[in-house]
Amino acid sequence: MRDEEESKGMESVQKYLAENASRNLDELKDLLRIPSISADSKYLSSMKEAAEFVSQKLIDAGCAAEIIETDGHPIVFGSWTKSPDAPTALVYGHYDVQPPDPLDEWTTPPFEPEVRDGDIYARGATDDKGQMYTHIKSVEAWLQTVGKLPVNVKFIIEGEEEVGSDNLDKFIEANKEKCACDVAVVSDTAQYGPGMPAITYGLRGIMCCEVTLHGPNQDLHSGVFGGSIANPVNGLASLIGKMIDENGTVQIPGFYDDVLPLTDEERAAFAALPFDESKYIGGLGVSATHGEQGFSTLERRWSRPTCDVNGIFGGYTGEGPKTIIPAKATAKISCRLVPNQEESKVVQSMEAFLEEHCPPGLRIEFKHYHGCPAVLCDLNSPYMQAAKVAIEKGFGTAPVMIREGGSIPVVGTFKDLLGVDTLLLGWGQNTDNLHSPNEKFSVDSFQRGTLSSAWLWQELGQ
Amino acid sequence: MRDEEESKGMESVQKYLAENASRNLDELKDLLRIPSISADSKYLSSMKEAAEFVSQKLIDAGCAAEIIETDGHPIVFGSWTKSPDAPTALVYGHYDVQPPDPLDEWTTPPFEPEVRDGDIYARGATDDKGQMYTHIKSVEAWLQTVGKLPVNVKFIIEGEEEVGSDNLDKFIEANKEKCACDVAVVSDTAQYGPGMPAITYGLRGIMCCEVTLHGPNQDLHSGVFGGSIANPVNGLASLIGKMIDENGTVQIPGFYDDVLPLTDEERAAFAALPFDESKYIGGLGVSATHGEQGFSTLERRWSRPTCDVNGIFGGYTGEGPKTIIPAKATAKISCRLVPNQEESKVVQSMEAFLEEHCPPGLRIEFKHYHGCPAVLCDLNSPYMQAAKVAIEKGFGTAPVMIREGGSIPVVGTFKDLLGVDTLLLGWGQNTDNLHSPNEKFSVDSFQRGTLSSAWLWQELGQ
Repeated sequence: MRDEEESKGMESVQKYLAENASRNLDELKDLLRIPSISADSKYLSSMKEAAEFVSQKLIDAGCAAEIIETDGHPIVFGSWTKSPDAPTALVYGHYDVQPPDPLDEWTTPPFEPEVRDGDIYARGATDDKGQMYTHIKSVEAWLQTVGKLPVNVKFIIEGEEEVGSDNLDKFIEANKEKCACDVAVVSDTAQYGPGMPAITYGLRGIMCCEVTLHGPNQDLHSGVFGGSIANPVNGLASLIGKMIDENGTVQIPGFYDDVLPLTDEERAAFAALPFDESKYIGGLGVSATHGEQGFSTLERRWSRPTCDVNGIFGGYTGEGPKTIIPAKATAKISCRLVPNQEESKVVQSMEAFLEEHCPPGLRIEFKHYHGCPAVLCDLNSPYMQAAKVAIEKGFGTAPVMIREGGSIPVVGTFKDLLGVDTLLLGWGQNTDNLHSPNEKFSVDSFQRGTLSSAWLWQELGQ
Repeated sequence: MRDEEESKGMESVQKYLAENASRNLDELKDLLRIPSISADSKYLSSMKEAAEFVSQKLIDAGCAAEIIETDGHPIVFGSWTKSPDAPTALVYGHYDVQPPDPLDEWTTPPFEPEVRDGDIYARGATDDKGQMYTHIKSVEAWLQTVGKLPVNVKFIIEGEEEVGSDNLDKFIEANKEKCACDVAVVSDTAQYGPGMPAITYGLRGIMCCEVTLHGPNQDLHSGVFGGSIANPVNGLASLIGKMIDENGTVQIPGFYDDVLPLTDEERAAFAALPFDESKYIGGLGVSATHGEQGFSTLERRWSRPTCDVNGIFGGYTGEGPKTIIPAKATAKISCRLVPNQEESKVVQSMEAFLEEHCPPGLRIEFKHYHGCPAVLCDLNSPYMQAAKVAIEKGFGTAPVMIREGGSIPVVGTFKDLLGVDTLLLGWGQNTDNLHSPNEKFSVDSFQRGTLSSAWLWQELGQ
């Protein structure tokens, strides 16, 4: 009878989701009405309300759920683990949202969700309430129809993603067994474009540092001393200028040594993705793209390491001229890392390069900030295969396999602390105005994401 | 009888100065007690008091004097012009002083002058009340003994030197005839060292500009966009890095074309001056001097053009890391100019260089600030010869002929508006703590400066 139930499972789950589509959307609206702004202490009670909402919906779905206090905002932990022989998936999401400012740029108020032209508009619609909620609704559909899931599922829905997830690592570190799983599932990324659902299988890592060049013990008169003393700003500029050559190639020895090149299949897959370069530069207000020669724009953004100065300052920065030789100058530098690059090795080569090229007469000070390595998931793992099938069933089209240029620290956390890969299944769009006014999320993607999630439990259980 | 009087002139002048040395010092103390801080509007009444003091002392000396209101602090104008066939010298000085902060670093209060170990300590002692006052006392000595001067003398003693001399040019422009003269005399510089009175015959000029490189229309996420878009900070650094090569040579085409080289005599004279390089770098807290190869430190400071970044800023400048590609980056750049370089030509070459090397994908914005050309006085003019003799008579040693690396805008004003050279006769020392706590001025130099000034009127009248 069990087998029979399971084989009929998705049939009844699909029916249930179709029948409850309107209620699910109403519930999402209820969640979006809660102004759970983690950055603003005025909204503490809303944070609590949102955590309670999520917890209650997990319970209503048929899961166990609890609200776990942290030094910051609480974490909602849910679970349904009654399939002892099946794998366990850990769903991660967040119920906190970005501040909605500037308010006057919203067409409708940020916490009064409204559907227009097939999109639901509200702060948090895509980031991440709407995307996260699909997984609660898919679990409900299974448990309320079949009465069980083909897999075990755990939920960690945190309230501090928009303010740095300060307490998430501590929680997981202290609760490794509770969080133990075979694969993590996160819907907090985007599709490649409308009608192009995507699985993000690679992320870049990051190395952050700061370099200060010290010259004279105080700002000096550039007339009295100019020409006799090394100028720290000129020196720093010269140092940074040497880091990248005219071809956009980073000149730090060994920088590319460990870089895992793209496979021919990946290059072909990236090349096959629609990408309108002129629209891209137009939107950014620049006249041309720029970067490492020999690679396409997508390849450079997703799979090549970079070296960018994120900030620079030294000497006089007020209005008009002031004729000094500054005492010091500082640059904040970060390198985006790609798979197989070790952050510590890049830090070492960076520091060695800076020291070697530090102009005479100047003293160098180097500071290293916390970073994280790149992520590359196995494209052929059974989890990845399950996700591909699930998305194809849910969206009616096979997902494109993409990478992202940024980092998602929680993916590293899951790898480091739980030893698992993460399936990054994006239901949103890059044009959903996340972190901006008029944030939105396609209602169709909300329903298809929920269906894909239901299929994911089915496929992972195979 | 006239000739007889004149030939005996300096004898009685010297006697008068010796007899009145103590009173002259007391008067200087009275002037130093007035907190004439031009930058601080709390001291408006003190500014007025100082102007009245100077005006009265000019009248007491035997000159005509008036206080001329400006849009800022008043200018004291004095004159004695009863030698129709003799040349006219215009003495320039200032009665305003720098703010005295930090007060707790003064051994005795800044406006309670005290003589210790042969130096008089007070704000304004050397800059410029003490130095300026020597010329009033020398004129008095002539007029109160001989009854006339061998030359005509005019005085412009302003009250805005420490805040940019905003109203001086306007005054001179509007009163060219009143200010007309054959040579200007300024004692607001320093001796080369103790017992080494100096005439500064050359000053560097300056060209100031600001360059901004514009990239994307807003700060971008360095993960999402890094590698595909030109970074304005990296671009600006690279641009600045190209301005000066490893030998300290400015790479802007034509930059050195018009530079007047030092004569062999000048190089020999500079080389003969005592200069302790290790003390120099020790005092500045650097490990080495740095600059254009092939020139000594003094040559580089006094006679070679420079290109210094005075300030730079772009992107994130707060604590810790922030991973953005900044929208723009700005550098404030100035070039010290040397004799025969035209500021407008340097501006043009700078702008052309920046535009030529602006990395692709970035847009350049260039702003030019007001500058001034270098000054080089004729070492063999009769005025210069007169000053040399006068100082040797006053100090008992021939002056050294030096240049300075900075600009003294008023020298350019006198050249441009009145068509005259300026004799920069420094009675102070570089170690007199001007603009710092415990400003001082040697009492001996005050008296010798006054005597030299008296000799100057004699020599200029020959």
